Amino acid sequence: MVLATPQRYKSHMLPVSPLVSAMLVPVPPLPSDGDARLDRAGTHSRKMQGRSGEYEGKDVVPLWVADMCLSAPQPIVDAMVARAQHGVYGYTDCPAALTTAMLTHLEGYYGCQQPAATWFRWLPGLLPGLNHAVRACCTPGSGDAVAVATPIYPPFLDTAANCGAALVRVPLTEARVGDSALRHSIAWEALEAALAAPSTKVLLWCNPHNPTGRSWSRDDLVRLGRLCVAHGVTLLSDEVWGEMPLSEEAAFTSCLSLLAPEAGEAPPEAVAGLRERLIVLTSPSKTYNVASLDLALALVPHAPLLARFRAVGRDAAELTPFGYIAALTAYSHAECAAWRRRLLTYLRANRDHALAVLGALPGVRATCPEASYLLWLDLTDALPDGVISGGGTAYEHLLSHGVALSDGSTFGASAGHVRLNFACTRETLDRGLQRVQTALAAAE
Amino acid sequence: MVLATPQRYKSHMLPVSPLVSAMLVPVPPLPSDGDARLDRAGTHSRKMQGRSGEYEGKDVVPLWVADMCLSAPQPIVDAMVARAQHGVYGYTDCPAALTTAMLTHLEGYYGCQQPAATWFRWLPGLLPGLNHAVRACCTPGSGDAVAVATPIYPPFLDTAANCGAALVRVPLTEARVGDSALRHSIAWEALEAALAAPSTKVLLWCNPHNPTGRSWSRDDLVRLGRLCVAHGVTLLSDEVWGEMPLSEEAAFTSCLSLLAPEAGEAPPEAVAGLRERLIVLTSPSKTYNVASLDLALALVPHAPLLARFRAVGRDAAELTPFGYIAALTAYSHAECAAWRRRLLTYLRANRDHALAVLGALPGVRATCPEASYLLWLDLTDALPDGVISGGGTAYEHLLSHGVALSDGSTFGASAGHVRLNFACTRETLDRGLQRVQTALAAAE
Repeated sequence: MVLATPQRYKSHMLPVSPLVSAMLVPVPPLPSDGDARLDRAGTHSRKMQGRSGEYEGKDVVPLWVADMCLSAPQPIVDAMVARAQHGVYGYTDCPAALTTAMLTHLEGYYGCQQPAATWFRWLPGLLPGLNHAVRACCTPGSGDAVAVATPIYPPFLDTAANCGAALVRVPLTEARVGDSALRHSIAWEALEAALAAPSTKVLLWCNPHNPTGRSWSRDDLVRLGRLCVAHGVTLLSDEVWGEMPLSEEAAFTSCLSLLAPEAGEAPPEAVAGLRERLIVLTSPSKTYNVASLDLALALVPHAPLLARFRAVGRDAAELTPFGYIAALTAYSHAECAAWRRRLLTYLRANRDHALAVLGALPGVRATCPEASYLLWLDLTDALPDGVISGGGTAYEHLLSHGVALSDGSTFGASAGHVRLNFACTRETLDRGLQRVQTALAAAE
Repeated sequence: MVLATPQRYKSHMLPVSPLVSAMLVPVPPLPSDGDARLDRAGTHSRKMQGRSGEYEGKDVVPLWVADMCLSAPQPIVDAMVARAQHGVYGYTDCPAALTTAMLTHLEGYYGCQQPAATWFRWLPGLLPGLNHAVRACCTPGSGDAVAVATPIYPPFLDTAANCGAALVRVPLTEARVGDSALRHSIAWEALEAALAAPSTKVLLWCNPHNPTGRSWSRDDLVRLGRLCVAHGVTLLSDEVWGEMPLSEEAAFTSCLSLLAPEAGEAPPEAVAGLRERLIVLTSPSKTYNVASLDLALALVPHAPLLARFRAVGRDAAELTPFGYIAALTAYSHAECAAWRRRLLTYLRANRDHALAVLGALPGVRATCPEASYLLWLDLTDALPDGVISGGGTAYEHLLSHGVALSDGSTFGASAGHVRLNFACTRETLDRGLQRVQTALAAAE
């Protein structure tokens, strides 16, 4: 990688171009009053300083790592402060009130009928859960395989190697819509072939999807669930973005809402047999910006599968009291719900603004995410000649102009792809977009 | 297990017996002023409420889980509060200042010559580190084996099964000294036989030792290191208790102090070849009572071993900002050093007091820990007739009298053994000891 140096960051010295300012989508109020004054300097933030500290002391607009340059809601901050003040930071287990709040939330928001606390496995993050699912389903070195739909959040791609399994990649269909839009859909034929292979034991699914922002429809999920059941494949559904819908018309559907009840009448869209092979992961980490507090929840309705999932995860770290308390506050405090509505309004406007700006740049193609704060861009036709053909990546080229996005090639996509995180103030977003614009206009 | 019910907890209603009060060792000042008023109720503490909530609402004196009923030092509390107030809890990496502080600490306290930041692997706890070491050294299902010296902290015993390896247990020699003392030493012949077996790939060692409190001597460690080198076994040394010495005469020796320098003259006790097969784990978690903040450090001087150790640990949770900040404060703030001295004085007096009380109870045998806040007891000859012969455990019998210790059988020892955690106020310790005394005097 070409490491950016301060000398090369010229774009921030330019005035905001007429292009950007003409595209402005009105800016809603920030979700918290303090967000305008927020400063992450000195917090050892990976997003701000780079994975190896390479952005420190440099002028980089960070639009990469999936956390927000916005404060968590005030009730969570207050709860964190109160817990910190206690002074004893010993081993902590799940508050009973969190179990209760979570069950209510699963019924009300996830559309899960009769959720049970016996399904719960609290984990110190989503990433351990992905790996435990693979370990629970695959015997190392046996040829057992993990299927994933690419592009995908990079740790999905690592799980197979981590666990001695094979990896089967099924690319999503990336359609170009008009001049500037991308829309992803499931390549059903390829996916079914992958699931039908006897070696495939588990499908790692992401809904809503990181990085494309697709919220898979109920029809898609029913079809997917039935395929998994038909071919004896465990379905891991990572639903961490489920509470961040940006589009009215593409509501979030949880795989938990497809379960046939153990007793009583099944809803028409229930997937018979899914209960025996479903693992759902969720967390307040993205929605409430508490990713570093190390808390996620795996929901495994089938007791024998949960027992296997637990048994292979005994090496996981402890949960932290801060994680439990943040989750309890997020799911039980009315102001957190109100804050989430303000947040989604703010993010939706940022999305629309970014799409308007980017859509006017020749050759740029972008998804319109239905959920999350992530844009997925194909810059292949927008980059200056020589960037890709010279062995570079869109990510490196943008970084050399002072804006850090996530490198699409780490998601299993081409070097022309990047992921843009728009969860920041409009001011920061505009600074970043300005640099993207300058980078694309530059001669290589 | 016989679950204790409130009705059965009678002993706390008794006055403190003449026996206990006669044995009083003077009580030093508490390490923090607030410790006298400390209340862990409502913090969802595992120690207070039991692993499955089974102690909640019951009158149990908790002398089990290895955390302290004492506050962390005030500078750590202040740093936690300040970080909590920031409001953004995103992905966080190691502060450069912590790396610097840790290197100084390794040289000054651990006696490590020329420690290097390139050895560091931060982990969200010790337990992931134990498992990563086994994965780095053993091929699942191949017959590769993990050696441990029992009794041992229970997660050591789980690692082999977690990682598809075999487990070889080498019991320490448990000598009875006088009427009431136990002292553990290494059964060298058995240990060498275990290390010499071609299937043995890694020794999981604990120094100072949990649960016996032995601080292994430099001579012991040199001999151990040479055996590991001679037989091609990786030595994992868990040194989390190293900063809690209770005896002047048994100072802590880190395996890091046995490394021959890469250049220059080797100290006389250096172990040639150890550098290529050493993994040291440490953490501020025990000393500063911050176990739930999920931070530990693995030190792996040999780059290829570190690369393997990292590669097999990609499923670990993220580190938390609270963990990093607690560690930075612990290792760089003068008041934390002063607090640790007060803590050790307080714990030493509790140890001596507990030993005086327990030593007067017929048939009780106890270790005198050189480090840690753990006493290891053999109650086989002290329990009422019928407890063990009836299939019960010392742990269950004590719990039925309202005092929770750790069950020795989970440490790979007999059902007559228990571990007692004396890191609490003297008042709590006395309430617990009173119940032990009553339980042992009771008819079964």
